[in-house]
Amino acid sequence: MMLYSYPKKMKLKEFQQYLKQEKIDLTVFIHPDINITYFTQLKPSFALLVITPTTASFYLSGLDDAPKLKCISVKVLKKGWEKKLANPKVKRVGINKDVISVGFWEKLHKIFPKAKLVDVSGELKKLRAQKTVEEIKKIAHACKVTDDAFNELINHWKKYKFKTEQDVSHFMEEYFSKHNCTTAFPTIVAMGKNAAIPHYNTSNCKLKRGFLLLDFGASYQNYNADCSRTVFIGNPNKAEKKLYELLLKAQQNATAQIKEGKTFWELQQLVRMQLGKYSSHFIHLLGHGVGIEIHEAPSFSMEAKEKIKNGQVFTIEPGIYFPKKCGLRIEDTILFGGKVKVLTKSKKELITL
Amino acid sequence: MMLYSYPKKMKLKEFQQYLKQEKIDLTVFIHPDINITYFTQLKPSFALLVITPTTASFYLSGLDDAPKLKCISVKVLKKGWEKKLANPKVKRVGINKDVISVGFWEKLHKIFPKAKLVDVSGELKKLRAQKTVEEIKKIAHACKVTDDAFNELINHWKKYKFKTEQDVSHFMEEYFSKHNCTTAFPTIVAMGKNAAIPHYNTSNCKLKRGFLLLDFGASYQNYNADCSRTVFIGNPNKAEKKLYELLLKAQQNATAQIKEGKTFWELQQLVRMQLGKYSSHFIHLLGHGVGIEIHEAPSFSMEAKEKIKNGQVFTIEPGIYFPKKCGLRIEDTILFGGKVKVLTKSKKELITL
Repeated sequence: MMLYSYPKKMKLKEFQQYLKQEKIDLTVFIHPDINITYFTQLKPSFALLVITPTTASFYLSGLDDAPKLKCISVKVLKKGWEKKLANPKVKRVGINKDVISVGFWEKLHKIFPKAKLVDVSGELKKLRAQKTVEEIKKIAHACKVTDDAFNELINHWKKYKFKTEQDVSHFMEEYFSKHNCTTAFPTIVAMGKNAAIPHYNTSNCKLKRGFLLLDFGASYQNYNADCSRTVFIGNPNKAEKKLYELLLKAQQNATAQIKEGKTFWELQQLVRMQLGKYSSHFIHLLGHGVGIEIHEAPSFSMEAKEKIKNGQVFTIEPGIYFPKKCGLRIEDTILFGGKVKVLTKSKKELITL
Repeated sequence: MMLYSYPKKMKLKEFQQYLKQEKIDLTVFIHPDINITYFTQLKPSFALLVITPTTASFYLSGLDDAPKLKCISVKVLKKGWEKKLANPKVKRVGINKDVISVGFWEKLHKIFPKAKLVDVSGELKKLRAQKTVEEIKKIAHACKVTDDAFNELINHWKKYKFKTEQDVSHFMEEYFSKHNCTTAFPTIVAMGKNAAIPHYNTSNCKLKRGFLLLDFGASYQNYNADCSRTVFIGNPNKAEKKLYELLLKAQQNATAQIKEGKTFWELQQLVRMQLGKYSSHFIHLLGHGVGIEIHEAPSFSMEAKEKIKNGQVFTIEPGIYFPKKCGLRIEDTILFGGKVKVLTKSKKELITL
């Protein structure tokens, strides 16, 4: 089997090719559009990025550190930039409709009164869903730090004397910080019945016997990891072990079934079949794309009908939830490039603490 | 002198009064509009908030924890919400033009084809610039944790054996995390010439003799603190001490001159006068409003001509920068309510380490 070859560079050239093809004279990105970070790999407090079929200009405040970028010229955003940008020859201006504010859109209409504003959000999603070598390195490193934090947690559980959910989430987030990462999202630590709420807000609830759900991830140089593990405090009974095994098998089976051309929705239906009578307790999508945003393309939704493609990074995260009782979720961040590579390698056999 | 009495509650009622007055039937806020957090004090991963002159509905994903809120009903965002919201009687729909995306604006036009979409961003800025008792408590707590982190840093400087700028920024951010806060913004730790760039990106640059600029702040329950201190590693010479003293006096004098009705721009001109020959080395605004966003109203810009008003929280942060040599900045977060209250109380006399 020929393995997929990941693209080497950020996709600026490819986007410029698209602009040329669609006869878009220039595309304007404005803070806080995450695509600015995608193209520049930087996250300044304010910026404007203008991409034409042949050039790219990154405008920063004069108070910022001026970086050196390949293929992108860095300029200071000065008063009157609107007039400088104005050009009566411009006929089509690209915008990211998902993000650009109505206020800035009106401003663009004034700068280019005769131009048509064209939505480029679909192309951006497509580009970003297929990761480059550089992006994969960053995501893989974020996943490694995520695994390291989890291993430290479970290997020295007694030493840390955690008493509440928050004690555990603080530990994880401090670990990320100590290892040159930030937290990709507020860590979920959900004890017992709290875990029945998939997006539970970690509280000062005390740890006790039962399933403990952890959903955590480091972010390294703007790229994210996403991982969930469900451990057990105390000794699980047979039914609890069986429930966990069912979910684990479903997660592993879904991972094994990842194949180019199959839709994410099909994959989800497989998991539903395998969960049998617990299928109705699996109340969310099977996963989502991960990258510079914690939730990005590809989409797993029924409506999207997206197909699995080479170069994508996404999660596989089935869960079973019993309102007011308990919740279990097992989630990995996965890279697909001809074959499946599980980037989060934390132990998945039921851990008892 | 009569002291100003801070409003007790979040400003929902006041905003509803405005909607009534402007004959706006409803205002729709969508993620990631920070005003959702302003009205609900929550920061869910996705939400929709609909405020009418008499009601407020907070729509969350079914995967979220459903909170209990005063005066706001919490609902699950279900498929077909657009149809439920549609109402041919609606004539004027409020939107926050600064944030709402062109994509969502088009969706609102479809939901309310006969309605006029009216910008409410100015009113939101006005409301948010005047803080409530509850907001002030949170900001003051964030400032306390910020001060505590700085005190721990300087009191035990030798113990921590910091070698690089990043060592120091990690220390600060871990301290915030350990004390139930997050970092309000990426901590700036700038050694020597690095500090000449006001928005410097902290690096692994080694600590050495000279001015070390720190710009740091904790965020507590979504409310931010903002503080800068410039310390000296080694022994400063006379000229260095004199420069620091000049800046400190300018900062203290500006703080003493805060008065209701005076414009922020006037205050800034006073600082420029006091800095004398160094005035041209003060290359940014004197300050900015702080609250649920690290930069919010009031604006200190010349164009805005905003006047100091009761209930505002803002920074006073003059700086002197010498490109490729060094940079100094001293910044406090200040509450104005008839009299001036400096919320960040970290020592301002030149600290040598």
